[in-house]
Amino acid sequence: MPQQRFITLTTDFGGSDHYVGAMKGVIFGINPSALVVDIAHGVASYDVLDGALAIAQAYSYFPPDTIHVVVVDPGVGSARRPIVARTEKHFFVAPDNGVLSLALEREQRVHVCEISSDHYFLQPVSQTFHGRDVFAAVAAWLSKGVEFAKLGDEITDYVRFRAPKPKRTENGNIQGVVLKVDKFGNVVTNITRDDVPQLFAVEQPQFKILISKHEITTLRTFYADGAPGEVFGILGSMGFLELSTNRGSAARTLEAGKGTEVVVSGKW
Amino acid sequence: MPQQRFITLTTDFGGSDHYVGAMKGVIFGINPSALVVDIAHGVASYDVLDGALAIAQAYSYFPPDTIHVVVVDPGVGSARRPIVARTEKHFFVAPDNGVLSLALEREQRVHVCEISSDHYFLQPVSQTFHGRDVFAAVAAWLSKGVEFAKLGDEITDYVRFRAPKPKRTENGNIQGVVLKVDKFGNVVTNITRDDVPQLFAVEQPQFKILISKHEITTLRTFYADGAPGEVFGILGSMGFLELSTNRGSAARTLEAGKGTEVVVSGKW
Amino acid sequence: MPQQRFITLTTDFGGSDHYVGAMKGVIFGINPSALVVDIAHGVASYDVLDGALAIAQAYSYFPPDTIHVVVVDPGVGSARRPIVARTEKHFFVAPDNGVLSLALEREQRVHVCEISSDHYFLQPVSQTFHGRDVFAAVAAWLSKGVEFAKLGDEITDYVRFRAPKPKRTENGNIQGVVLKVDKFGNVVTNITRDDVPQLFAVEQPQFKILISKHEITTLRTFYADGAPGEVFGILGSMGFLELSTNRGSAARTLEAGKGTEVVVSGKW
Repeated sequence: MPQQRFITLTTDFGGSDHYVGAMKGVIFGINPSALVVDIAHGVASYDVLDGALAIAQAYSYFPPDTIHVVVVDPGVGSARRPIVARTEKHFFVAPDNGVLSLALEREQRVHVCEISSDHYFLQPVSQTFHGRDVFAAVAAWLSKGVEFAKLGDEITDYVRFRAPKPKRTENGNIQGVVLKVDKFGNVVTNITRDDVPQLFAVEQPQFKILISKHEITTLRTFYADGAPGEVFGILGSMGFLELSTNRGSAARTLEAGKGTEVVVSGKW
Repeated sequence: MPQQRFITLTTDFGGSDHYVGAMKGVIFGINPSALVVDIAHGVASYDVLDGALAIAQAYSYFPPDTIHVVVVDPGVGSARRPIVARTEKHFFVAPDNGVLSLALEREQRVHVCEISSDHYFLQPVSQTFHGRDVFAAVAAWLSKGVEFAKLGDEITDYVRFRAPKPKRTENGNIQGVVLKVDKFGNVVTNITRDDVPQLFAVEQPQFKILISKHEITTLRTFYADGAPGEVFGILGSMGFLELSTNRGSAARTLEAGKGTEVVVSGKW
Repeated sequence: MPQQRFITLTTDFGGSDHYVGAMKGVIFGINPSALVVDIAHGVASYDVLDGALAIAQAYSYFPPDTIHVVVVDPGVGSARRPIVARTEKHFFVAPDNGVLSLALEREQRVHVCEISSDHYFLQPVSQTFHGRDVFAAVAAWLSKGVEFAKLGDEITDYVRFRAPKPKRTENGNIQGVVLKVDKFGNVVTNITRDDVPQLFAVEQPQFKILISKHEITTLRTFYADGAPGEVFGILGSMGFLELSTNRGSAARTLEAGKGTEVVVSGKW
C-alpha cells in the first residue's frame, strides 16, 4: 500500500544549488509515494533562529502526521546529534541545535529521539550534507511507516532555546529586539500583544517606538493605511509587533536588521 | 472520494519566509488531496502588474478546473474585496485589485464573486495575511467541491486594468513602455507585433528603437544570434518586443527598468 | 491508467517570472498524473556548466524511470538540437549543449535521440522559450508512455564536455580551478580526492592551497571545526575540494569566483 504522507522541507539551502533537489531525490527514491512540500529554502544561511521561526509559523496548518524536515545545520559533521521529534499531531526531523525550539514550545506531549539507527541513513554519510544523507533519508523511512521508537533512544536533553523575550525596564519601557526582516522589509520584533497590551487597546495611549535613532508614533491595523513614506507599528500575522511601511521597506528606512534594539515607551 | 484538483500559487512572498509554506499548510489541512503547484513567488513586492503578467502568461496551460491563487496584495486588511473568478476552464482566487486583469481579458464567460462566506476563512482572520487566512482556505474549499455560487454574490464592478498600451505619435512613431525586466535582464516592452507589424515583416524597414539614450537598430530572431555586447530587439515568448543581449543583461546595459519609455521610429 | 512518472525540473529561469510555471502548466496539461519536482531554478543564467553540475549531483537519487528536464539554454532558437537521453535508469530532456555531460558521464548504456517529432511540441514553437514549447511538452509525452524511439533518430555526436580537470605541473603542484560558489559562499574547486590523495590521508603532509593571493594551510573535516574567520579546505559533499569558512562566505573572503585558479602545493 503506498504511504502517502506529507513531508515538508525548510532549509537554508537556497535555490541555486542541487542541495534541495538531492534531498527530494533521496526521499522519493525511498518512498515514491511521499508528498513533498517546500516550505522555504531561503532561511538566512546558518541562522537557526530564522529557521525556527519559519517552521514554527507554518507547521501547524499541515495535516496530522506530517513529517517536517528542518535543515539549518551549521554544525553538520560535528558531535551535534540528529533528532526526530513526535508531538500529538506532527513529526519533525532536524539537527539537535534548537531549530525546532519555537515549534516544540507550542506543542504538548513532545517526545524526542536521538537518531542512531544508521541503517536508515544514505551510506556513506558525508560530513557536510546530512540534509541528504541523514534527514531526508530518515524522513522518508518514517513516511513509509518505520516506527519512531526504532530510530533511536528517547532523550530529554535536546537543545532548546526561547526566542529572546522583551524586558520591562525600570522606567516602564519595553525593550525588545528585531527577530527578522521579511521579504517586504517588514521589521519583525519579539514584542507581542501580551507584552504591551496598552499599545493594542481600543483607546491608544501616547507612545513612542524607538529603533536605531528613529521614533515611531503611529500604529496602523493594515499596511495600506500608512501614509506614503511613513513607518508605523502594526500587529503582524506572526503575532509580533512589526515596523512597516506601506509599499516599501521599513528595514531600509530604519536601517534596522536582526538584533537591532527596539524600545516601546508610553504613559502607562 | 479524494478531490484531486490543481491549485497554483503565484505570490510576491519570496522564498525566505514562512508565508508560502503556511498557505500550503492551510490548503493541505483542508484538502490533503489537492495538487499544489508553485508558479512564482518572486513577483516584485506589491507590484500588481507584475503579478498580473505572471499569472496571465502561465494559467492557460494548466488542466481544466485548475484553481489559480494569486496573492499580490498591498491592500490586505483594507476595504478591498476578496474575489473568486470562474471562466470557461479556470478558477481564480485573488484580492480585487486588478491582479487578474490580464488573465481575465483573455477569457470568455467570466463570472466574478465577492467572497463573503467567511466560514470558509481561517479564523481569526488576520489583517495582514489573507494569503493564508482567506485565499488559501477558499481555494482549498473550492478544490473540495464547494460551489462557486456559495462563496458570495456575483459582482461586475471588480477592478480591471489594461496593461498600458503603446501610442502612435503624430510623427508616426510608436511610444511604449517597459512592462518588466525578467531574470535574465530581458527588457519586456508593451509593444506587440500588431502594434508595429512592419518591424517583424520579412523585408525589414529601417528603424530605430530609442530607450534611455540608447539607440537600437538591430532585430534578432533568437538570442544567440546577437553579437557580443550588442543590444537588439526580439519578439519574445510573451508576445512583446523585448530588448535583449546574448548571454547578458540588456537592462543593465540600457539602465532601463519597469516604466522606462521606449520609442520605435521607422520609415513606414 | 494514470501515468505517475516523476519529472524533475532544473533551469536557470529563477523564481520571479512565469517561466517555470508555464513549463509546469504544459506538463500537467498533457499529463495531469505527472509528478513534477523542482530541483533548482537558480542555476546561474546561461551557465551550462552550472546546470550540468546541478543535475549531475541530484538525478541519481530519484526513482528509476524519472525524466529529468534540464533547461539552461542560451542557444534557444538557434540550430542547436533538442535531445532526449536514456540511460539504464533515467531519462533526460535538454538542449544539446552539453548540459547533460556530467550526468551522462556517470551512466552506462547511454542512448541519445535528437528530438524531431515536432507533433509532440507545443505549437506554434517560439524561438525564445523551448523550455515551455519543446522540453516540457516532450517530457510530458514521455511520462505518458510515448516511446523513446518515436521521438527522433538516435545520434552519437551530441555535445559533451568534461568538467575542467586539474593538471599536475612540473614542480608537482596540482593546478585546478573554481567550478562554482554555492549559496553559502563555499568555493567548490575541480580537485577531487583522487587528484591529490595525500591531502586527505590520515597523516597529512605540509601543504599550501593558493587562491587569489590567499594561502590556505588548514584542512577541516566539518565546517564547524573552523576557527572564526579562518578559511580552510574541506572535502565537500560533491566530492570536490572546497574552500570554506565556518558560518561565513569563503568566496567573499577570498574574492574568488567561478574560474579562479587554485593551486595545491605540498611536499609529496
